[in-house]
Amino acid sequence: KINPDRLWDSLMEMAKIGPGVAGGNNRQTVTDEDGEGRALFQSWCEAAGCTMGLDQMGNMFAHRDGADPDALPVYVGSHLDTQPTGGKYDGVLGVLGGLEIIRTLNDLGVKTRHPIVVTNFTNEEGTRYAPAMLSSGVFAGIHTQDWAYDRVDAEGKKFGDELKRIGWRGDEEVGVRKMHAFFELHIEQGPILEAEGKDIGVVTHGQGLSWTEVTILGKDSHTGSTPMPMRKNAGLGMARVLEKVDEIAWSHKPHAVGAAGHIDVYPNSRNVIPGKVVFTVDFRSPDLGVIEDMEARLRSEGQRIADDMGLEISFEKVGGFDPVAFDEGCVTAVRSAAERLGYSHRDLISGAGHDACWINRVAPTAMVMCPCVDGLSHNEAEEISREWAAAGADVLLHAVVETAEI
Amino acid sequence: KINPDRLWDSLMEMAKIGPGVAGGNNRQTVTDEDGEGRALFQSWCEAAGCTMGLDQMGNMFAHRDGADPDALPVYVGSHLDTQPTGGKYDGVLGVLGGLEIIRTLNDLGVKTRHPIVVTNFTNEEGTRYAPAMLSSGVFAGIHTQDWAYDRVDAEGKKFGDELKRIGWRGDEEVGVRKMHAFFELHIEQGPILEAEGKDIGVVTHGQGLSWTEVTILGKDSHTGSTPMPMRKNAGLGMARVLEKVDEIAWSHKPHAVGAAGHIDVYPNSRNVIPGKVVFTVDFRSPDLGVIEDMEARLRSEGQRIADDMGLEISFEKVGGFDPVAFDEGCVTAVRSAAERLGYSHRDLISGAGHDACWINRVAPTAMVMCPCVDGLSHNEAEEISREWAAAGADVLLHAVVETAEI
Ligand SMILES: NC(=O)NCCC(=O)O
Ligand SMILES: NC(=O)NCCC(=O)O
Repeated sequence: KINPDRLWDSLMEMAKIGPGVAGGNNRQTVTDEDGEGRALFQSWCEAAGCTMGLDQMGNMFAHRDGADPDALPVYVGSHLDTQPTGGKYDGVLGVLGGLEIIRTLNDLGVKTRHPIVVTNFTNEEGTRYAPAMLSSGVFAGIHTQDWAYDRVDAEGKKFGDELKRIGWRGDEEVGVRKMHAFFELHIEQGPILEAEGKDIGVVTHGQGLSWTEVTILGKDSHTGSTPMPMRKNAGLGMARVLEKVDEIAWSHKPHAVGAAGHIDVYPNSRNVIPGKVVFTVDFRSPDLGVIEDMEARLRSEGQRIADDMGLEISFEKVGGFDPVAFDEGCVTAVRSAAERLGYSHRDLISGAGHDACWINRVAPTAMVMCPCVDGLSHNEAEEISREWAAAGADVLLHAVVETAEI
Repeated sequence: KINPDRLWDSLMEMAKIGPGVAGGNNRQTVTDEDGEGRALFQSWCEAAGCTMGLDQMGNMFAHRDGADPDALPVYVGSHLDTQPTGGKYDGVLGVLGGLEIIRTLNDLGVKTRHPIVVTNFTNEEGTRYAPAMLSSGVFAGIHTQDWAYDRVDAEGKKFGDELKRIGWRGDEEVGVRKMHAFFELHIEQGPILEAEGKDIGVVTHGQGLSWTEVTILGKDSHTGSTPMPMRKNAGLGMARVLEKVDEIAWSHKPHAVGAAGHIDVYPNSRNVIPGKVVFTVDFRSPDLGVIEDMEARLRSEGQRIADDMGLEISFEKVGGFDPVAFDEGCVTAVRSAAERLGYSHRDLISGAGHDACWINRVAPTAMVMCPCVDGLSHNEAEEISREWAAAGADVLLHAVVETAEI
């Protein structure tokens, strides 16, 4: 078993970098704080005897030698970047849980046949730069690196430039590494494990996602002197589309969710009818057909709403991935590890997207989940217990060691 | 009659300061650009033989002597600040139209019995600092100066500090000046005059306004892994309230308008269900009872929507004024001037708020309006013709001269 206190102390140490405003973290991707977090992680890895690889997307690979020089490494990891008002565990637990299994193997003097590599993927969260899981996506050949470099944030800064600015753009070509297997430990970010009192989620599938950026154009004009019938109120159009998004998601109950987290109103002045609103609709389902139906209805119903109100509307897909079925062998390794260690467990479908969803395209992959309080995530109040974290890392250790062979 | 080309040239000259992105202006209150505009206006006034007064709210008063040292001055003016994406005429026409009548009287060598004072009131627009018409409001005793100084912008900067920073916080006590009368020339900002082919609007009333800042609190959580029934989506709550605002305004057709121009969503991340939304509802009507009804319904219906969705909602009144009836004598002076000059005219109720609405509390006041293309204002594409501007300034000249006596 891993050392629960050491894992917890590392989590708390990392959480000091990029503190939030309410006890959580704001350590968004390719910011100075992201750079600081990376440096701390690297120093820990080196102290644990690993050598650090860095690719051109800033993905970090801490390598622990195996006994067989020809054996492909078993990879573990997740991401160190956070939401602007994020928690201390989302992503970080998977990276530092990976480090903890290396520290534990060092303590025990155990050498596996396959090397083990702990990975930190760049920009998993997708807030500063859409889409989410950008760099694992480039690694898996989903996006080109040039396209990824050209993503811009709200201030117009390019991803590639910012990655260089913070000093974490490496030389290694992205995606050249071949993996024997990949395991990601993550908090559930949903309520099921806690509600059922289970220690471990064995993730068999991940639901798919579609992000559509919607732009509605009306006409900015005076809120006082523009008669009601002459208004082209893009804000009211946005309100009607949001109501429709909710209705569409509920219509597929319980197999779909939908909401808009990002909404920008222009010129955003109290006495100007909004002339432009840009917002991003997030639809998800484990069923690809359901996602396609929701996307199509957003476009047709949105168009109808806009036409009725004399507004213009346009839609751009800015992110998405199909539902995922993880590798049976890796899933079984996770399930048997939980079984062997005596942790209660159940199979789960991940509600969130993860780097594992992309890596699954290029290597046998599975995920281990642990509960989080009230299923709350993407919130500074995100919380887990030391015991939950330890159970997750124990299962990760056993699944990895079984796969990497002693 | 005034000199149309000189007036137009001054308008175009002023529009060079704080250019917008689409042909209009961004010269928001107490910014560096506002300071530049003030300096230009002062230099023009001094060249026209006026002496400049400056009060502690930054209100500017360009004084032209009258023949009778004991006669109270007749005031004219409006504001030089603009919306973030504003036009070149909203407010500016009233200030530079006032300057043009002084230049014309100088040309003609005419001295009025009462002095004439051209005024630029600080922060009429209310975008950077709510409420609108802040400094004419302090002048008229509606707000205290301390309260006005403490207003903060979106970056947390205080109005009083910014006024000092740009160097336009004067020594004169606010509101000590007594006015014989006040006249404000302004573009209509609505479609009536143009549609009816009238040169001049004789403004008999101004509709009242109510600004309510609404804060909805939900719970930020993950858009993917939070089940639909567990969501507390403040963004969806905002959408439902916006729909209600529209419905409430239409229910008083044709005597009311309503919309929200300002909407801020937190944390504004694509994969976070909004935990907080702050927006400002703008309701207006010429009928105080209608405004009170709309405000009350916003609060009760908003509360019901929030309760149904498990959200918290709160309401703060951040601006407002009662419907205004302008002074009969001053209104008659405007109407007779239009008549005498042979301009077509009609009586109007102002749809927008104006400094004249507050000054009306402390002095006999009226307004002159001229048409604007498509009734469009609070938009960089705001447009008027040289002839419309000249007709408005001619009527202003004659109403002022009649009131100031030769
Ligand atoms: N795990 C996680 O929150 N990932 C961010 C991408 C997503 O929105 O699912
Ligand atoms: N005239 C004008 O646009 N004033 C701003 C205050 C208002 O919103 O009516």
